[in-house]
Amino acid sequence: MGKRISVVLLSGGLDSTVTTAIAAEKGELALLHVSYGQRTEDRERKSFDDIADFFVAENVLKVNASYFKDIGSSALTDTSIEVPEGELEREGVPITYVPFRNANLLCIATSWAEKLGATRVYIGAVEEDSSGYPDCRKSFFEAFNEVVSMGTRPETKIEIVTPLIDMKKDEIVRKGLSLGAPLQLSWSCYKDEDLACGRCDSCLLRLRGFKEAGTEDPIKYRS
Amino acid sequence: MGKRISVVLLSGGLDSTVTTAIAAEKGELALLHVSYGQRTEDRERKSFDDIADFFVAENVLKVNASYFKDIGSSALTDTSIEVPEGELEREGVPITYVPFRNANLLCIATSWAEKLGATRVYIGAVEEDSSGYPDCRKSFFEAFNEVVSMGTRPETKIEIVTPLIDMKKDEIVRKGLSLGAPLQLSWSCYKDEDLACGRCDSCLLRLRGFKEAGTEDPIKYRS
Repeated sequence: MGKRISVVLLSGGLDSTVTTAIAAEKGELALLHVSYGQRTEDRERKSFDDIADFFVAENVLKVNASYFKDIGSSALTDTSIEVPEGELEREGVPITYVPFRNANLLCIATSWAEKLGATRVYIGAVEEDSSGYPDCRKSFFEAFNEVVSMGTRPETKIEIVTPLIDMKKDEIVRKGLSLGAPLQLSWSCYKDEDLACGRCDSCLLRLRGFKEAGTEDPIKYRS
Repeated sequence: MGKRISVVLLSGGLDSTVTTAIAAEKGELALLHVSYGQRTEDRERKSFDDIADFFVAENVLKVNASYFKDIGSSALTDTSIEVPEGELEREGVPITYVPFRNANLLCIATSWAEKLGATRVYIGAVEEDSSGYPDCRKSFFEAFNEVVSMGTRPETKIEIVTPLIDMKKDEIVRKGLSLGAPLQLSWSCYKDEDLACGRCDSCLLRLRGFKEAGTEDPIKYRS
């Protein structure tokens, strides 16, 4: 048996960057980025590359799943739908929800993990302090683990791991700082690629997290 | 409420063609083809187009999931691995298994179904008389239904439907004939794109099905 391999879904955002730092302590990294026609995919991919370099990742895979753009129906993948700004407290599933996205991402990660002989797939999903996406709930990941067990080779043993699922954003920031995660290389903004907008849900959650952790966000904002 | 929409995963093979004929009786069709770098993807896509025309499908989506070719590790997606021939009875998972493929296909289908407001996703998987893939088992589809329920919007109600799961190949052929399914337009060969090889697992299963159904396969074989 070689070193234990962990596949990490690394979008390049704050949560997945901290998740990568957690996974890096447990074994060899296999970092996966998925472009799915999201508004900021080029900026995300730059963060992914920078973070993969930082961790000197053994395995890297960049996947194009642009069919999400064809499917649309989310403000992230359909530019005719506006990204909501400046109103974090809303009811229901936000318009930035991309239909069943996390299941698709986990499937790609699991396929690669089975090929690599990896035993873990990390995803930086957050249930407690999140935007209200159905595919960020613990019950979803529990069900997904069952699918992985049923749908792969008998000798394949892959576990979906969600180390941040119960954390608040400020705890995630603190965890990242304590592990020396390269938060300055991460990108969370849903909307812009040069300077973060500071007004979309993702920026607001991130800024609140840094504020509550009593530290400054190292990335630059427009406003 | 409009007419009930069913998304059907239509590779263009025998099983998915019969599945399409079954779904066509129940509502409006949304036909989905996924190219994943398989050897015969061009030929499959031709069958898909022909079959979609035959059924005058209301909705059609063709997706490129070529990351499977990057992942490889299957004789279908890695041309350096030979497709086994002429030996249907083997133990274990065949080398033509594409890691966790059906989960990926179902995810894409579910994302599209959620966008369309479809209530059913059909897949022509066969457990009884199949090639021994783990992601063709009933237990896998049951687990997947749970993931769909957990990972989509609360108002989304999508069921994964596997009408062929318990059928033998000859029953599938008979079912297709009884429904007038365009079996002459379908393509099952894993290996070749001009004439079916008649020797890979998929050809052998298909030929046995037609033989046991007491009728001739309308497509042409090399041998």
